[in-house]
Amino acid sequence: MASEKEVSNGVEWRIKIADGSSERLVPEANPASRLLLGLKSFVVGLALKVWKFLQKAWDLGVDDPRKVIHCLKVGTALAVVSLFYYTRPLYEGVGKNAAMWAIMTVVVVFENSVGATLYKSLNRVCGTFLAGFFALGVHSVASQSGQRFEPIIVGASVFLLASAATFSRFIPSVKARFDYGAMIFILTFSLVSVSGYREDKLFELAHHRISTIIIGTSLCIIISMLICPIWAGQELYTLTTRNMDKLATSLDGCVEEYFKDSGSVVESNKECHKKLQGYKCVLISKAAEESMANFARWEPGHGPFNFRHPWQQYLKIGSSMRSCAYCLEALNGCINSENQAPEYIKKHLNNSSLKVSSNSSSVIRELEITIKTMKKSSNIHSLVGEMNSAVQELQNDLKSLPKLFNPPSIPEADTPENKKIEPISRTMVKMPLMEIVPLLTLASLLIEIATRISGIVDAVEELENLAKFKRASNDKC
Amino acid sequence: MASEKEVSNGVEWRIKIADGSSERLVPEANPASRLLLGLKSFVVGLALKVWKFLQKAWDLGVDDPRKVIHCLKVGTALAVVSLFYYTRPLYEGVGKNAAMWAIMTVVVVFENSVGATLYKSLNRVCGTFLAGFFALGVHSVASQSGQRFEPIIVGASVFLLASAATFSRFIPSVKARFDYGAMIFILTFSLVSVSGYREDKLFELAHHRISTIIIGTSLCIIISMLICPIWAGQELYTLTTRNMDKLATSLDGCVEEYFKDSGSVVESNKECHKKLQGYKCVLISKAAEESMANFARWEPGHGPFNFRHPWQQYLKIGSSMRSCAYCLEALNGCINSENQAPEYIKKHLNNSSLKVSSNSSSVIRELEITIKTMKKSSNIHSLVGEMNSAVQELQNDLKSLPKLFNPPSIPEADTPENKKIEPISRTMVKMPLMEIVPLLTLASLLIEIATRISGIVDAVEELENLAKFKRASNDKC
Repeated sequence: MASEKEVSNGVEWRIKIADGSSERLVPEANPASRLLLGLKSFVVGLALKVWKFLQKAWDLGVDDPRKVIHCLKVGTALAVVSLFYYTRPLYEGVGKNAAMWAIMTVVVVFENSVGATLYKSLNRVCGTFLAGFFALGVHSVASQSGQRFEPIIVGASVFLLASAATFSRFIPSVKARFDYGAMIFILTFSLVSVSGYREDKLFELAHHRISTIIIGTSLCIIISMLICPIWAGQELYTLTTRNMDKLATSLDGCVEEYFKDSGSVVESNKECHKKLQGYKCVLISKAAEESMANFARWEPGHGPFNFRHPWQQYLKIGSSMRSCAYCLEALNGCINSENQAPEYIKKHLNNSSLKVSSNSSSVIRELEITIKTMKKSSNIHSLVGEMNSAVQELQNDLKSLPKLFNPPSIPEADTPENKKIEPISRTMVKMPLMEIVPLLTLASLLIEIATRISGIVDAVEELENLAKFKRASNDKC
Repeated sequence: MASEKEVSNGVEWRIKIADGSSERLVPEANPASRLLLGLKSFVVGLALKVWKFLQKAWDLGVDDPRKVIHCLKVGTALAVVSLFYYTRPLYEGVGKNAAMWAIMTVVVVFENSVGATLYKSLNRVCGTFLAGFFALGVHSVASQSGQRFEPIIVGASVFLLASAATFSRFIPSVKARFDYGAMIFILTFSLVSVSGYREDKLFELAHHRISTIIIGTSLCIIISMLICPIWAGQELYTLTTRNMDKLATSLDGCVEEYFKDSGSVVESNKECHKKLQGYKCVLISKAAEESMANFARWEPGHGPFNFRHPWQQYLKIGSSMRSCAYCLEALNGCINSENQAPEYIKKHLNNSSLKVSSNSSSVIRELEITIKTMKKSSNIHSLVGEMNSAVQELQNDLKSLPKLFNPPSIPEADTPENKKIEPISRTMVKMPLMEIVPLLTLASLLIEIATRISGIVDAVEELENLAKFKRASNDKC
């Protein structure tokens, strides 16, 4: 049995011996060729893996060419910084280890978006400056207190300030804006104050570090802002509007899918399914939105956005969209439920439900346009009104639903119209309520979604006021 | 009016003049004292802000003392590393700039959890090693190609490799595990290959860098693992079980809250409201779970966890919990709806709904215990069975609900029990369905939640198999 484990790949020949056991027939048993075979399959497997990896990378690049451009930008920045080292005069000017700091700055600070680069650059410069200042102060106190106490004072100050700065990184408001700065503060303070003990030219060291860091960060900022800039604010704005579009499409699609004749189910293809699942993007984009909003606040005015554009408001819009998406998730569960209402009951709510969903999605689309054009919508209120009246209509249809269950008990209702309903309602008396529960849940969730959409409207209106959107030119009122 | 704006803080005395205008009475109008006053209020305001900030920081420390311990650990590590600089022999041993690399390593690599520290340490060491190897190769090629081509070759290689490594950071599988390593690769490669042009002792430089980085990382790993270690895996495990508890409590609480007599609404205090909102923690913990799972895989076995504990499975459990929490969010919306079913209809579904919610939360609590004790539960299947039968019961109650609407039309149903229902159902014939829609939605969402809980059960069972949980000792079967 042990021999079976040894050869796990390839065909195997066996011969049965009289005593019942079997023996393996090995065509070429010499270990060298087996090693070669194993090595060959290993290399082929590795090559296949590498090929798949490269293919994935290629797809990623084709999918978003800006990523490729970013990589070339980083390469360019590093190549330019290397010039400082190659060119003798510059090299002499900023000191021996200076080029190293410039290279390090470029590698560490250059981020994908302008906002992130600015955040890191400013944090690095300020952190270095502040730490240098503190370290020089500690150094001057320590150097006056004698050879014996000097290391103790320096060590204690490193311990205390590093602990305090590390702790500050846990405080949410500091973490959001100055996390990197606090790290650089610890780094620079430790380096400068510890070097102070050995180095005579402490001031020169601090000066060189600061100047090379400023050179490195300026280069990064210039390159990231001038060559195909990727603005975090713009990204956040695009993400928000794209999520609104996806939410509207999903909402429309889910309700349509539910009320569609069961005959045409075959039509629903993969593309359609993907559209229906668009709301899931809304559910998972919280972290991305937060980091973008954090970076966007460092960016100067760009495109249609001012320097102090209210980016935080986009987070509120995102969170109100998510609260809609939660309901849509639950609604999706109902749609896939086993219990399905009979067609004629469905038909009763068909029109009003579709009206609510299409009016709701129109409101979302109008909000999308409001944000896209950055102009106050002139007809958002009428759209919200339409949505609310559609909700009212759906509620009325729900109210009239029991008629289908209850045969009219009062003879005066014996109009021709009621006569038509009579035979249906008779057959329905025994119909279990259970079958229409998913339908009612759908209706109820649609109403809830419409309520939550009002929350998005409020959030967008707050954005309009904060960012001082102008009225649209085709304003009728 | 302009003068009013100037003095915005402090009490102001005004005198009315005959022509109707008023004039400000300024006790001491000289600018020096006003400046002093302004400065004073600024300092007081600043002191207040700082005080508030410190108070917040203090609360943070009291809330989670491990954060304070982490800060002291970082301080200790930095103080120890400083010894390398203070102690002459060590200082001579590793070269002039070496201490700097050790300090830098400690500052950059020391993270809150052991997993994160290990991730950064291993990435730093491997990235440096690989980059040093590449850089030496490029250097040997460049140095043989003459003085003129040397900078071109070095520059081009920096550009190409930096671009490629930056691009690799966009690939999800690389980003999850080797993001930091790729950055260190770029950094080290640029530094070593650019230094190679000037520095004669390139090999020595690379060797010193590697050795000091190994010293720094070892120190960080030892301190983070030995002094009050915070394991990312343990954190993920705690987060998962705590979220399960919150989900179960919310589910129970929400349904109880809905069916509670309206008279006792006043009882619901802040504490209770907080409990009901527990599911929101489940909704927002995706990012935290992912980063913890990423770090946990670097950790060696600790506590009850092996080295290759299936941490990724916790993400699946988390995501199935979130899909429950979405429904709970929608359910919460229904509970706060304006339309409320009348008490007697509520009573009809009261028992079965409460049974579904309590049985569902029992299943979640059992799963929590399974994960907490890391032992296969012996009665999870019976609990799931109970949950399903409760769902069946609720469905039966829903089925019998139309009876309340329809007076029994067939005389044979004239049992004493039906006689009791009769007078109620007579009054209900005209009751709009609208009023019971929230109740039906609640029931339907409860059923959906029970279905999704089966998803959590499956995910936990997969974890049981992957992590080879043993059977509980009080196993009856």
